[in-house]
Amino acid sequence: MNQIKTILLAGIFFVGLTSTGLAQDSAAEARVLIEKAQASTLGWDLVESLTTEIGPRLAGSDAEERARDWAVARLTDLGFANVHVEPFEMEGWQRGSIALHVGDPYPQRLVATALGGSIGTPVGGITASVVRFATLQDLRDAPLGSLKGKIAFVDGVMTRTQRGSGYGTAVQKRGAGASIAAQRGAMAIVIRSAGTDYHRNAHTGGLRYDDAQPRIPAAALSNNDADQLGRLLKLNAEIELTLSMSSKRIGKVNSGNVIGDIVGSEYPDEIVLLGAHLDSWDEGTGAIDDGTGVAIVTAAAKLVSMHATPKRTIRVVLFGAEEPGLIGARAYLKANSDDMDKIIMVSESDFGTGRIWRMDTGIARADEAKADAILQVLRPLGVLPGGRTASGGSDVSVLSGAGAPAISLGQNGWEYFDLHHTPDDTLDKVDPAALAQNVAVYAAFALMVANAEGGFHAPEKQETAGQ
Amino acid sequence: MNQIKTILLAGIFFVGLTSTGLAQDSAAEARVLIEKAQASTLGWDLVESLTTEIGPRLAGSDAEERARDWAVARLTDLGFANVHVEPFEMEGWQRGSIALHVGDPYPQRLVATALGGSIGTPVGGITASVVRFATLQDLRDAPLGSLKGKIAFVDGVMTRTQRGSGYGTAVQKRGAGASIAAQRGAMAIVIRSAGTDYHRNAHTGGLRYDDAQPRIPAAALSNNDADQLGRLLKLNAEIELTLSMSSKRIGKVNSGNVIGDIVGSEYPDEIVLLGAHLDSWDEGTGAIDDGTGVAIVTAAAKLVSMHATPKRTIRVVLFGAEEPGLIGARAYLKANSDDMDKIIMVSESDFGTGRIWRMDTGIARADEAKADAILQVLRPLGVLPGGRTASGGSDVSVLSGAGAPAISLGQNGWEYFDLHHTPDDTLDKVDPAALAQNVAVYAAFALMVANAEGGFHAPEKQETAGQ
Repeated sequence: MNQIKTILLAGIFFVGLTSTGLAQDSAAEARVLIEKAQASTLGWDLVESLTTEIGPRLAGSDAEERARDWAVARLTDLGFANVHVEPFEMEGWQRGSIALHVGDPYPQRLVATALGGSIGTPVGGITASVVRFATLQDLRDAPLGSLKGKIAFVDGVMTRTQRGSGYGTAVQKRGAGASIAAQRGAMAIVIRSAGTDYHRNAHTGGLRYDDAQPRIPAAALSNNDADQLGRLLKLNAEIELTLSMSSKRIGKVNSGNVIGDIVGSEYPDEIVLLGAHLDSWDEGTGAIDDGTGVAIVTAAAKLVSMHATPKRTIRVVLFGAEEPGLIGARAYLKANSDDMDKIIMVSESDFGTGRIWRMDTGIARADEAKADAILQVLRPLGVLPGGRTASGGSDVSVLSGAGAPAISLGQNGWEYFDLHHTPDDTLDKVDPAALAQNVAVYAAFALMVANAEGGFHAPEKQETAGQ
Repeated sequence: MNQIKTILLAGIFFVGLTSTGLAQDSAAEARVLIEKAQASTLGWDLVESLTTEIGPRLAGSDAEERARDWAVARLTDLGFANVHVEPFEMEGWQRGSIALHVGDPYPQRLVATALGGSIGTPVGGITASVVRFATLQDLRDAPLGSLKGKIAFVDGVMTRTQRGSGYGTAVQKRGAGASIAAQRGAMAIVIRSAGTDYHRNAHTGGLRYDDAQPRIPAAALSNNDADQLGRLLKLNAEIELTLSMSSKRIGKVNSGNVIGDIVGSEYPDEIVLLGAHLDSWDEGTGAIDDGTGVAIVTAAAKLVSMHATPKRTIRVVLFGAEEPGLIGARAYLKANSDDMDKIIMVSESDFGTGRIWRMDTGIARADEAKADAILQVLRPLGVLPGGRTASGGSDVSVLSGAGAPAISLGQNGWEYFDLHHTPDDTLDKVDPAALAQNVAVYAAFALMVANAEGGFHAPEKQETAGQ
């Protein structure tokens, strides 16, 4: 029955070919690629190698530098052209140690992790009573000065969703909470982790200090420990916390993006840019964030070069320093601003190992038929039509924001935020079959985009905005 | 349909009553108790209170002392008689800190936890190359002196089973591995955790040093990290580990057992002993090990006193210092050796929150018919017949080993070793409905044992062995 369906789909697709600008041979090549990719272990081999040999890869660290060396060696070995590092500087940060204790009458340790970029506490820590806020808005509503001498605790359980959309709300307290609390006089802030698991791993992640406010130490509690603190505060609103953190910002350090090309046969200057990021938070080994992305786009481009003939160049960009705030992406834009008009597509894999199930487009309306034709080839892999807005992904949103056409290949994110930014982000969480599905989708997608007649163009709204 | 079944079962049961020595009114009372217990939140309230207000309760620590105070207050409030602490001394231990790092060319941190009772390393740690053994037997087979200047790594994945039987094999490397490695010259030992999860929590637990061997530091790697170390050793057998631990043994400290009775109406000197343990490892909050046990037996006894009339005394014993090796149980036996013949049954809840699904008996053959009659009342709760050997549980195995009749109420242990002895042993893992099933089984069981005509006697084999 599957065979009959495939034939029917192929027939439907065939009808649309000449009118959509997707060459018939490209679709046929894409189908071969899908078979080859699903049988390939290259994606697994890459993520295993990166997470084992390098492990955690904090932005700006020696480990991230070793990851760049690893990436240059792997891309070179795989036959990519133009393999090089584009270096940039960034402000470095070290995690140090953390200890968080509840005082009498319920003395006990809580599990917490420093937020990326946070300053530390004085030696000996900060001891203060705690004011709980159910939401970040409740903290915003607190009067200025009302938290003087206190530690703010911002609670609020993250919602689990297929697309990970609960993160958008949950992450705000992580990014902005410290400065909002500081403005109200707080000495420190602890938040409930932006994460959906109950495995007593706190979820780290970057914060942004507002330069107009004092910088205060900021940490995330595991979900379990946020529950515990909530219960303890109900028993006794006067309990104190002692927070000791030796985190520090260490001034300028080096990072970089690693780039490699599969050169196009007809339009080598036109670029299909596949992104992922090399850096990771330092608590896990960066398997799903974003070792899998590195593996998926690298394996996909390599498989295209082995089994097909892309007319445009497929460029893999392994960004540095995504986690502290898309620093590598901004550096790429700056270093390549003259060539932005040569990018006909950006797409990034940075959402773990869940299967790709939808395709969202951020392209000109005139190019939608070509995207639909591509989708028809991807449909047997479970990919459904999405919406008509897309940034392409985390780092490459900087490029689509600057006018590059983008397609987002949306993964199942149901379990992603169980692991994201925790010690639990390790190789064992990667599903080899789901990884191969991702590689297959990206390979077929990259080939068909590279060979699409007339290429792709930015959506009208952005074109207007750019004028 | 359920009603009809219940009537049929009741009929079957009725026939056996006079011949088995289980009073008819006792079975009827037990059925009422089951209904009351399943509707009661007392078990949940107790485990929430213990794990929140006290949290981790390391044997011999101030926290364990606070747990004893908590237990005395709770048992008193609940109306238990004869509430008291039986104190004892034990050798104390402090966890301290731990850091485990892989050296060049793959520098990275691994997640590990000190084994309970382990000595620490010298300041600055131990740096040495690693020899991996797939099993403890392989370590035993290594020649004496062959590990001089090395760290031993004993691997071996624990098997997941319904009854937790994989633990019996896996735990041997934790208990005995250090001294076996030391005998072969090792400077330290790291083991794969005796646990079934992949949540990057190492599983702690007690070790036993052999007095004939040098004491060496011992730690457990999380399953994920054991995988990682195995992969790294395949890449490069020469890599070194640096292990720094500040654990120490701190000499004599105080612990104690907390005891409370529901006094029997006819035979107050005869005792049905329900056990659990108050202490826990210090990484989690001791919810499933053994906060649930404390809650289950306490709530069960209380519910019996509220809704029925036990003829014999139901004694709750909340043992101290189970984790370092049944120290509280041995102290109880020593303090109560003159009254051992008054114990007509021991049973302990120390296997988390899984539902009770089988009943194993360690009683005289002549008493089996009474046990069968009890089982008929428990069957609607999902309890099936087990085997004809039983220790009654962890601490009370010391008592059954000394001749007390025992019945083990076996819980579903499929997921227990995902959490056991890890930071993940927290309140959120307790299923309220499963907890209530446990309370209902223990309550009905305790009542029917307390009221069984002629009581229960030790199995023949042990009687023989005792002569």
